[in-house]
Amino acid sequence: MRALILNRTLEFKRDYPDPSPGPGESRIRVRMAGICGTDLELARGYMTFHGVPGHEFVGEVVQTARRDLAGKRVVGEINAACGDCEWCGAGLGRHCPTRTVLGILGRDGAFAEYLCLPDDNLIPVPDSIPDEIAVFTEPVAAAFEIFDQVSLTSNQTILVLGNGRLGAIVAMALVAEGLKPTISGHHKDKLARLYSLGFVTEMEANLTTGFDVVIDCTGAAAGFGRALELVRPRGTLILKSTAAGSAPVNLALIVINEVTVIGSRCGRFAPALAALASGKIDPRPLISAILPLEDGMAAIAQAGEPSSFKVLLRVS
Amino acid sequence: MRALILNRTLEFKRDYPDPSPGPGESRIRVRMAGICGTDLELARGYMTFHGVPGHEFVGEVVQTARRDLAGKRVVGEINAACGDCEWCGAGLGRHCPTRTVLGILGRDGAFAEYLCLPDDNLIPVPDSIPDEIAVFTEPVAAAFEIFDQVSLTSNQTILVLGNGRLGAIVAMALVAEGLKPTISGHHKDKLARLYSLGFVTEMEANLTTGFDVVIDCTGAAAGFGRALELVRPRGTLILKSTAAGSAPVNLALIVINEVTVIGSRCGRFAPALAALASGKIDPRPLISAILPLEDGMAAIAQAGEPSSFKVLLRVS
Repeated sequence: MRALILNRTLEFKRDYPDPSPGPGESRIRVRMAGICGTDLELARGYMTFHGVPGHEFVGEVVQTARRDLAGKRVVGEINAACGDCEWCGAGLGRHCPTRTVLGILGRDGAFAEYLCLPDDNLIPVPDSIPDEIAVFTEPVAAAFEIFDQVSLTSNQTILVLGNGRLGAIVAMALVAEGLKPTISGHHKDKLARLYSLGFVTEMEANLTTGFDVVIDCTGAAAGFGRALELVRPRGTLILKSTAAGSAPVNLALIVINEVTVIGSRCGRFAPALAALASGKIDPRPLISAILPLEDGMAAIAQAGEPSSFKVLLRVS
Repeated sequence: MRALILNRTLEFKRDYPDPSPGPGESRIRVRMAGICGTDLELARGYMTFHGVPGHEFVGEVVQTARRDLAGKRVVGEINAACGDCEWCGAGLGRHCPTRTVLGILGRDGAFAEYLCLPDDNLIPVPDSIPDEIAVFTEPVAAAFEIFDQVSLTSNQTILVLGNGRLGAIVAMALVAEGLKPTISGHHKDKLARLYSLGFVTEMEANLTTGFDVVIDCTGAAAGFGRALELVRPRGTLILKSTAAGSAPVNLALIVINEVTVIGSRCGRFAPALAALASGKIDPRPLISAILPLEDGMAAIAQAGEPSSFKVLLRVS
C-alpha cells in the first residue's frame, strides 16, 4: 500500500505491506488524516518511533468481525489497550502499561492507505459530519481531556500559550465550554487570524504575569519555562505539549509559587465527536491545506512551517 | 553582633551591625537556629542572597511595641508580607509579591544574635516545648503545607524520596496524620537510622515504579527526574525541594503519564507548633549536632555532609 514511513528519516513508499488486523481488530481504509505537532516531533526522534506515523484520521471499516462496524465511516481512539489490567478496568486504557498507540508507539498509523485498531476503539461518524471535520476528533478529544482533569470556571483568567493548531483547538474547546481564554504566541499573522475568528489574542511579548491557568500548547520544550513565568502563585499550568528531549526547568519557581502542573494527553472521543456534530466546535477555519498522501513529504514540511495551522492528507 | 554572613562566600563576623525593627516589627534575640538544605543552596548561589542566612529559629522578643510579645519566647513565620494586597487578604502572605523572606529574600535571617520580623509573624512558644523542639516549627510547618494543598488518604502508596532532614520531617508529618509513607534514598546508614525510628524504608535503587504519590525531598535538582519515573500514571508528585539552577526535565513524561506536579513551600505555623507541643511529632532524634554560632562555618560544613540530618546552632 501507499504509506509515509518513518525510519530515522521520513519517506513515501508505494509498496509498504498492508497491515493485518489482530484478534478483535478491524482494518480501516483511511480517508483523511491530520498532521499534528507530535508527528513533527516523532520525525525529530521523539519516542524513537519507526513505522507509519499519524494518529488523527477518519476512515472506512473494510475488514471486521463486528457486523455493527462493517462498512462504517469511523474515527478511532488511538490507544490500543489490553482490556484486562487495572487501568483498563477503570476505563483508562489510555494509561494501560502494555498499550500500543496508533502511529506513536508500537503500531503503524494513519499516514497510509490502511490501518488496524481494536474494534472497541472505533466510533461510527454520523453522516452529517464531513471528513474534514471528523478528522479533528482526536485533537478535540485531547483538548476536552482538560475538563476531565481540572475544574475550570469562567471567573478564572486562562491563557493558552501557543498560537498553533494545538492552541487553537484547545481554545475552541474552552470557548465551547463557556470559558474566555486569551491565546498568545509569537506569530502576528496567526494571532490576527485567530482574532478574526473571535478569540481574544495577545502577542506573547506583551503578556504580563499572573494568569490563574496557563495551558502550554507551544509544542516546544522551552515553552514550559515561559508558561511557568506567566502563571500566578498557587495557579495551574496545564501541559499539553509533547516534545522530544529534555528542557532545562527552573524547578524552584514551581516550589516558590506553589504551582500545580498537570500533564494532559489523550481524551475520550465520544464528547469530542458530539461537540463537532453539534457545531459547538467547527475547526474548518484552521485547515491550512489538504494534500494527497502522495504529497505527504511536502505536507509534513508545510505543517512544520510557522505560518501553518492544520495540514490534512487526503488518503483515499 | 555576632553573625554568619553570606556575600558570595560565607564567613563568621563579630561586628555585624545589629538590626533595627521597622514599623510593626519586633527585635528577637535568637536562642537556637536550624540549618536547612535551602541554606546550603543559598551558599551555592540560590536566590543570589546576600546577608545573614537562616530561617529556622526560636528566640526571645527583646524589643517590641506589642505588650503581649514583650519578653516572650517565640518562633516566627518567615514571610514578611505587606498585609494589604489580595494575597495577604486571603491569608496567603506567603505569596505576597512584595514580601521579604527571613534569611532568603531581602531580609537578614537567624544565623545571628538578633533578627527582626513583623509582630504578626511571631507566635509564643509554650514553656513545655524546649528550644531544640521549637526550632523545628518552620520545617514542620513546611511539611504540613502538603495537607493544605493535597488530600492524602491512607489507601494511597506514598513515597518520600530523599532520606535527609527534609524527607525525615515530611515523613514524620505524614505519620502524624495517620499515613504510612516509604522513605527512600541513597544513604544506607541514614535509612537504617530512620528504620530504627519506625519508618518503612527502602534503598532508592530497589524501588519499583508506580507510587500514587511521590514527595520529592531530595534537595537536588536531579531528584525531580527520578521522582517522575517513580510516580504512577495520573499520580501526584509533590515537589518540596528547592535548589539553585535549572534541571533538565523530560516533560513528555509528565504529559504521557498525566502526572500532577504540585510545588509546596512554607506552611502555617500554628498547626505545626500544636503537633510539636502534643508530642505527635518529636524531631529530636534527627539532631546530628548542636554547635555554637561561633562554630557556624563548621556547622554548615557538617550539615552538608551526606551523613547528617539536622545541625542546630546555639546562638545565645
